[in-house]
Amino acid sequence: MALLVEKTTCGREYKVKDMSQADFGRLEIELAEVEMPGLMASRTEFGPSQPFKGAKITGSLHMTIQTAVLIETLTSLGAEVRWCSCNIFSTQDHAAAAIARDSAAVFAWKGETLQEYWWCTERALDWGPGGGPDLIVDDGGDTTLLIHEGVKAEEIYEKTGQFPDPTSTDNAEFKIVLSIIKDGLKTDPKRYHKMKERVVGVSEETTTGVKRLYQMQANGTLLFPAINVNDSVTKSKFDNLYGCRHSLPDGLMRATDVMIAGKIAVVAGYGDVGKGCAAALKQAGARVIVTEIDPICALQATMEGLQVLTLEDVVSEADIFVTTTGNKDIIMLQHMKKMKNNAIVCNIGHFDNEIDMLGLETHPGVKRITIKPQTDRWVFPETNTGIIILAEGRLMNLGCATGHPSFVMSCSFTNQVIAQLELWNEKTSGKYEKKVYVLPKHLDEKVAALHLGKLGARLTKLSKDQADYISVLVEGPYKPAHYRY
Amino acid sequence: MALLVEKTTCGREYKVKDMSQADFGRLEIELAEVEMPGLMASRTEFGPSQPFKGAKITGSLHMTIQTAVLIETLTSLGAEVRWCSCNIFSTQDHAAAAIARDSAAVFAWKGETLQEYWWCTERALDWGPGGGPDLIVDDGGDTTLLIHEGVKAEEIYEKTGQFPDPTSTDNAEFKIVLSIIKDGLKTDPKRYHKMKERVVGVSEETTTGVKRLYQMQANGTLLFPAINVNDSVTKSKFDNLYGCRHSLPDGLMRATDVMIAGKIAVVAGYGDVGKGCAAALKQAGARVIVTEIDPICALQATMEGLQVLTLEDVVSEADIFVTTTGNKDIIMLQHMKKMKNNAIVCNIGHFDNEIDMLGLETHPGVKRITIKPQTDRWVFPETNTGIIILAEGRLMNLGCATGHPSFVMSCSFTNQVIAQLELWNEKTSGKYEKKVYVLPKHLDEKVAALHLGKLGARLTKLSKDQADYISVLVEGPYKPAHYRY
Amino acid sequence: MALLVEKTTCGREYKVKDMSQADFGRLEIELAEVEMPGLMASRTEFGPSQPFKGAKITGSLHMTIQTAVLIETLTSLGAEVRWCSCNIFSTQDHAAAAIARDSAAVFAWKGETLQEYWWCTERALDWGPGGGPDLIVDDGGDTTLLIHEGVKAEEIYEKTGQFPDPTSTDNAEFKIVLSIIKDGLKTDPKRYHKMKERVVGVSEETTTGVKRLYQMQANGTLLFPAINVNDSVTKSKFDNLYGCRHSLPDGLMRATDVMIAGKIAVVAGYGDVGKGCAAALKQAGARVIVTEIDPICALQATMEGLQVLTLEDVVSEADIFVTTTGNKDIIMLQHMKKMKNNAIVCNIGHFDNEIDMLGLETHPGVKRITIKPQTDRWVFPETNTGIIILAEGRLMNLGCATGHPSFVMSCSFTNQVIAQLELWNEKTSGKYEKKVYVLPKHLDEKVAALHLGKLGARLTKLSKDQADYISVLVEGPYKPAHYRY
Amino acid sequence: MALLVEKTTCGREYKVKDMSQADFGRLEIELAEVEMPGLMASRTEFGPSQPFKGAKITGSLHMTIQTAVLIETLTSLGAEVRWCSCNIFSTQDHAAAAIARDSAAVFAWKGETLQEYWWCTERALDWGPGGGPDLIVDDGGDTTLLIHEGVKAEEIYEKTGQFPDPTSTDNAEFKIVLSIIKDGLKTDPKRYHKMKERVVGVSEETTTGVKRLYQMQANGTLLFPAINVNDSVTKSKFDNLYGCRHSLPDGLMRATDVMIAGKIAVVAGYGDVGKGCAAALKQAGARVIVTEIDPICALQATMEGLQVLTLEDVVSEADIFVTTTGNKDIIMLQHMKKMKNNAIVCNIGHFDNEIDMLGLETHPGVKRITIKPQTDRWVFPETNTGIIILAEGRLMNLGCATGHPSFVMSCSFTNQVIAQLELWNEKTSGKYEKKVYVLPKHLDEKVAALHLGKLGARLTKLSKDQADYISVLVEGPYKPAHYRY
Repeated sequence: MALLVEKTTCGREYKVKDMSQADFGRLEIELAEVEMPGLMASRTEFGPSQPFKGAKITGSLHMTIQTAVLIETLTSLGAEVRWCSCNIFSTQDHAAAAIARDSAAVFAWKGETLQEYWWCTERALDWGPGGGPDLIVDDGGDTTLLIHEGVKAEEIYEKTGQFPDPTSTDNAEFKIVLSIIKDGLKTDPKRYHKMKERVVGVSEETTTGVKRLYQMQANGTLLFPAINVNDSVTKSKFDNLYGCRHSLPDGLMRATDVMIAGKIAVVAGYGDVGKGCAAALKQAGARVIVTEIDPICALQATMEGLQVLTLEDVVSEADIFVTTTGNKDIIMLQHMKKMKNNAIVCNIGHFDNEIDMLGLETHPGVKRITIKPQTDRWVFPETNTGIIILAEGRLMNLGCATGHPSFVMSCSFTNQVIAQLELWNEKTSGKYEKKVYVLPKHLDEKVAALHLGKLGARLTKLSKDQADYISVLVEGPYKPAHYRY
Repeated sequence: MALLVEKTTCGREYKVKDMSQADFGRLEIELAEVEMPGLMASRTEFGPSQPFKGAKITGSLHMTIQTAVLIETLTSLGAEVRWCSCNIFSTQDHAAAAIARDSAAVFAWKGETLQEYWWCTERALDWGPGGGPDLIVDDGGDTTLLIHEGVKAEEIYEKTGQFPDPTSTDNAEFKIVLSIIKDGLKTDPKRYHKMKERVVGVSEETTTGVKRLYQMQANGTLLFPAINVNDSVTKSKFDNLYGCRHSLPDGLMRATDVMIAGKIAVVAGYGDVGKGCAAALKQAGARVIVTEIDPICALQATMEGLQVLTLEDVVSEADIFVTTTGNKDIIMLQHMKKMKNNAIVCNIGHFDNEIDMLGLETHPGVKRITIKPQTDRWVFPETNTGIIILAEGRLMNLGCATGHPSFVMSCSFTNQVIAQLELWNEKTSGKYEKKVYVLPKHLDEKVAALHLGKLGARLTKLSKDQADYISVLVEGPYKPAHYRY
Repeated sequence: MALLVEKTTCGREYKVKDMSQADFGRLEIELAEVEMPGLMASRTEFGPSQPFKGAKITGSLHMTIQTAVLIETLTSLGAEVRWCSCNIFSTQDHAAAAIARDSAAVFAWKGETLQEYWWCTERALDWGPGGGPDLIVDDGGDTTLLIHEGVKAEEIYEKTGQFPDPTSTDNAEFKIVLSIIKDGLKTDPKRYHKMKERVVGVSEETTTGVKRLYQMQANGTLLFPAINVNDSVTKSKFDNLYGCRHSLPDGLMRATDVMIAGKIAVVAGYGDVGKGCAAALKQAGARVIVTEIDPICALQATMEGLQVLTLEDVVSEADIFVTTTGNKDIIMLQHMKKMKNNAIVCNIGHFDNEIDMLGLETHPGVKRITIKPQTDRWVFPETNTGIIILAEGRLMNLGCATGHPSFVMSCSFTNQVIAQLELWNEKTSGKYEKKVYVLPKHLDEKVAALHLGKLGARLTKLSKDQADYISVLVEGPYKPAHYRY
Repeated sequence: MALLVEKTTCGREYKVKDMSQADFGRLEIELAEVEMPGLMASRTEFGPSQPFKGAKITGSLHMTIQTAVLIETLTSLGAEVRWCSCNIFSTQDHAAAAIARDSAAVFAWKGETLQEYWWCTERALDWGPGGGPDLIVDDGGDTTLLIHEGVKAEEIYEKTGQFPDPTSTDNAEFKIVLSIIKDGLKTDPKRYHKMKERVVGVSEETTTGVKRLYQMQANGTLLFPAINVNDSVTKSKFDNLYGCRHSLPDGLMRATDVMIAGKIAVVAGYGDVGKGCAAALKQAGARVIVTEIDPICALQATMEGLQVLTLEDVVSEADIFVTTTGNKDIIMLQHMKKMKNNAIVCNIGHFDNEIDMLGLETHPGVKRITIKPQTDRWVFPETNTGIIILAEGRLMNLGCATGHPSFVMSCSFTNQVIAQLELWNEKTSGKYEKKVYVLPKHLDEKVAALHLGKLGARLTKLSKDQADYISVLVEGPYKPAHYRY
């Protein structure tokens, strides 16, 4: 696509695939609202006081129907919003169109190139002369990364006059990041410095992004406060677990229509995401084998009747491979070459380095046959057998299906709203330093409570006497901080 | 669509949506072949001897990728084939295109009108001057019905000179059937008589069609032998059960993206199809309530922890409704009016009379909002709340998703191939009278055996001594006829 | 125990372990009555008319609490009853005591020798000078066998004057049978002839006994009508499946306290019993491997995510082995010698020849360490490692626990009551020839219906219109005879 | 029992039910050792260096077979041990006998009165003139409580000369505690002071005891360091969850033989224990309803398809009630009076105040019918219907069955051994203050690793590169402290 920003009649910028899908997007957004009671309750509770009045929020998070409900919750609370997706395949184009038309500046489409991806990210960060953003909603940390790398480069430039050098890295994606920063430097050598001065804080959605934040905190390089939304119980134990339990089989079915029952499925990693994936596959009738590095998670797998082996043990007999590790180099070319014909290989983790796509793509003589978008059969010249790669090794549940369903995303995103409110409300109080924080437990419990009614659940109420007996307040929080759920 | 027959360069007739999808269809057919070991084994075993040489086969069965592999198995065994779909929404257009281009005459597309549907059926039966078909593959029995009704009309015409009267029935679909027969009568008053004389037999795929056949057998009106493929164990206990367990959630997800976990789901009917649906919903985290008329099936449901209630008991609190009964008038307008906003209502049974679509459509003031094809929100004027109807009340797993996956259809379709071979091979032996037959158990066991290798299963072998002890042959069959599995 | 018959104060004969447990037995019988709605409903429905007035019933069926409720249902309908157990370990001594004291002649205790077992069987058949029995309730067919072998021996004796020769067989148990018949012959050479003349019929409880009956029917040697209760749906698909799902883990836990989660469990046979066992083990967190000879059952196992292998494939890595085949020679000495230390080996099938106990017992140098009754560790001299055998290779759920729970036995036993009533009511009508019959489906459905209320289930009622549409009666039966559930 | 201490021939004190069961106990201990790889590995690793040389350990923890393996692990590492049970019904008498005969001073039997219970606790603490204990293994905190209350009383006595007054409390059990302390004061007014001076620390096993410790820490009254073993992942997420999943149905079955399938079961509390209980009941075919105060846990329940209601909503329709809350006053008399006839009521939480036993016992006209030990039917005069109470409202899995199985207890107890070693090794280092600690994660991971081999699991190893990428060490620990598993 030509990377030109368009404008709505009211002047809002956007770049989406197809504006004519806005009506369809709107219909699905309306359905999703019914399934997202936490977000809708936030609109009811906070909407009247317009707490985000004046706040400019940049978001980098899969531009889906569910995210659309999040964005419109933010705007209904008074915020101005610019958005991009955090994965090249995860945008739902009708959602993007509806939001672009009705609510916020959107730069996102399904099937971006990496170049396009970072262009979108940069657009979402660019608030023009008025400056901004004030707040960031991040998923995976790319927006945060861009600012941090930008600041770093500006410092070097200031000291040495040197521009960042894209050829200094082998990493194709990082080359692009450096190019973008380099280009920016030329027009405004203080661009990212101004940004970091203004940013009140970031709320980060996912394990991978959180890991980056804690590393920056440990290194003392974090430039603004961060709230780790991922580790809210109502996020990590819900969206990671129940979301993936739903969306993994959805992605497999839409991409391949393959029968899961009777198959041997390997799940690499048995964290919350892996637990959800393994549960889904087991329930669908697959025989599930788990690979793990962590003996505790491995022992959990065995207690559920799952076999724990190494990838090497099973690579040539399994039918389906799913990576969930958040680590890199999990399924390498030499593994893929040993697989059965038409073995399905996919990744539900955040980044695309769990599967050795580079190794595959550059394997001499390998042939790629695109069955349909996000479903490719790669044929090895040695054997003339092939494997099926989903979503080019990226987030398969968003690339091949529609990601987590609305209800569970409502839990995650209500945490986002609360985190953004918290950062904004405390922007001048000094409550948050340049550190990583989690939300207090009573807010976590509140998020859960907002979702129970929709399901017809009825909570028991503690008596004062009982509350005293277990040393909690009648209204909670009910568990110590270290409680694992 | 204009109902004009087209022809391939080699002169084969067809009518499909989009011939340009043939390549895509071919790729998916090739993937499916790997998942359909029973059909591929049939090609290997029987292909060389070309047993269907000279046989003209008409098929009326969902024109999907899996059916494509069936059709090409029949043609690879020597048959000439004409095909239509047995449901207006079940065709996969790329599958139809590939078959039309490469293998057989196809008249089918996704989203036929009823008029178009019966036109396709009639086309599939029309073998031109050479006459035919010799064999019928039927699913739901519409092709068989057309011939039986045709013969009946011709007899009346012969005796009385009267044409069938489409206005004599209230049933919109039956009106069309009568019209078609009437038109045919005018050009050839012996058309269906010639057909029934030639037809060696029919093999019927599904519960609903089988029920019709047994009724005709009971009434003494069955015009040719029939093999009940549905009641092969490797059909009814596999495709009905495991197929639906796979394709029900697939259809729900593709149509609505709704989170199943936490929802209250009502499954009407707890036969094999209902058992598969209930299992899928329960495993996905729904609370499942079953409605049943049969106390035995009801008791089975309770033993799995499912609540058994009447529809009236739960109609206003459930989130998802699925009919699987094969009966009619299950969910009526008055039920739908009591449902929660955005309750999902769908049917996975064969015919579209389980849900009262007529009542819904004709309800004064009702508003239909099409979210996307096969997903409609119907809004009641009384409450301004709506319900979501999938696939217009028809077979939702085929209307909203891609139906059962290849592997389980390979079991069903290998039974079809065996049944067709049996009918054809015995066409002159008198083995089959005008009755309904099931395949002998050793063939059923053979079908299963053909599918075990793909899954890495290893069978134990009986010793002669053990076989004698339980009074079976070493090579089977291993169970008495009444065994229930 | 000294094999002397004792008498209650009212003159009823018995031989039980400990009459002082009668009160305890009575309390548990009263609890069981609440869980056995089918039997209690039978008392209500039929009790007033005393249909068994004058009938003498001999039963050979595990003398448990549940059987006690069956016996007292028979007596409350007017029958006179004599009873023995059909397995040397399956008697619950408190149940036997309560029945002996209050209701019927009982000859049964937990831990009989084979000699004692057949003595008890012979006592249960001996109705003294008045003659009898009129009816037989059999489980496994030993009572039926004794009469048939008795008749055979009497015929030979009449023709040749020869007594049966216990030394003519290697089978230790059959030696005893011949001895008993021989002894009987000396006192009354027409004993079994008189008996078979009088017997109106037998109702048989289990797969194994039914298999024997069909063999006799096939050979033309069956001496009286038989009703196959096992193949009532409400028996084979309930007690075999759900009963074993309950009682297998119960037996394992009581005998060994071993954690099932994480273990590798092998289930030999995937019929109804095997399905119940595999489900229980899988749910408890074991990794289950199935061995099968039947490809259909094997394919069912794979669809549930179970691995299908041969015993040889897994014998040295599994932790728990359960036989459910109804066949013989499943786990042989050479298998047991290859097992891991403390592997648990047990049989839930009817007869004790699934596990090669003889081979184990006679293995030179093998050491048996009794942990507690029915739990033995057998240590091999070659390795000094041992395996744990439950219930001496016999019915482990009755030997090590209390067998199937009351509710599911109520289904089975209500079928027994109905079968006994049917035989008795039709004793002079000629309805039943010397063949094997199953109960008609409407009675099967009735049994189910009687059990639904207790579980709070509410059935849907067919309209006349719907019933016509699917060609059934409004009041059922609802399924064709071949329906598999 | 007469509360007289007996002595073995080697002079070790004990009081157990029946020393003749020692051989039986020994056999079961030997079986358990094979299932407890963590403990056996500890013996191998630490035994040679005798790290507990000179340490006197008092333990108050269910005196079962598994605990016997723990005790003998402590003694094999050089400790001298005195032991009592922490529940009046939880002792396995054969385990107690074997340990008393072979390894340690034991004061415990199944079915102690409260008076006897505290006598045993006091005996276990009494190391005679040499003084002791050095270390405490506690479960529920009763031993720790006795010392703390003793010290408190001694301080008051020192200041005021006043003895503690048993009549000052309504709590029957606390009366006994005060009496014991009072008696002790008379003979040695510094007894508990000497004790607390000597105690190096306590390791606490369970949620309830840990809660008490954190309260004391918060109040500043904790007298010695404590290690919270309960919150090791390999404890709370294993023994609480998988242990209860195993032992709840075991207890239900042994106590009542009731069929779980088809029943309505209420689980009060959905923490780790409740999750295990609910999973077990659901898998066995019950319909499970959860009661919860915590919205997060409630939402987790709904995601698994469980209904969340209040006890009042379901009290009159459920069949089985299980309390798992660790709170008090969960099922009160007024609830029990509304229950169905023969509803089963039990508690798997630590203390017996979850069920209102006092209210039940003192209800005018109520009748208690003991079916067998730990299984009582209580009949209400109002309705003449009854409910069945297990284990007198106490820990039903230990009262009615044998508690958690060996394998999962090996995880818990290996943590205990590590905690005791840590306290002892650091006794002079000042590492541990008078606070509550949890074990570091690498020890937690080590415990898990020690248990994987037994299950045939094979761990994947991180490369250095991968470890760096996720910022962990190759050898772990692999997760941040707040990770929830």
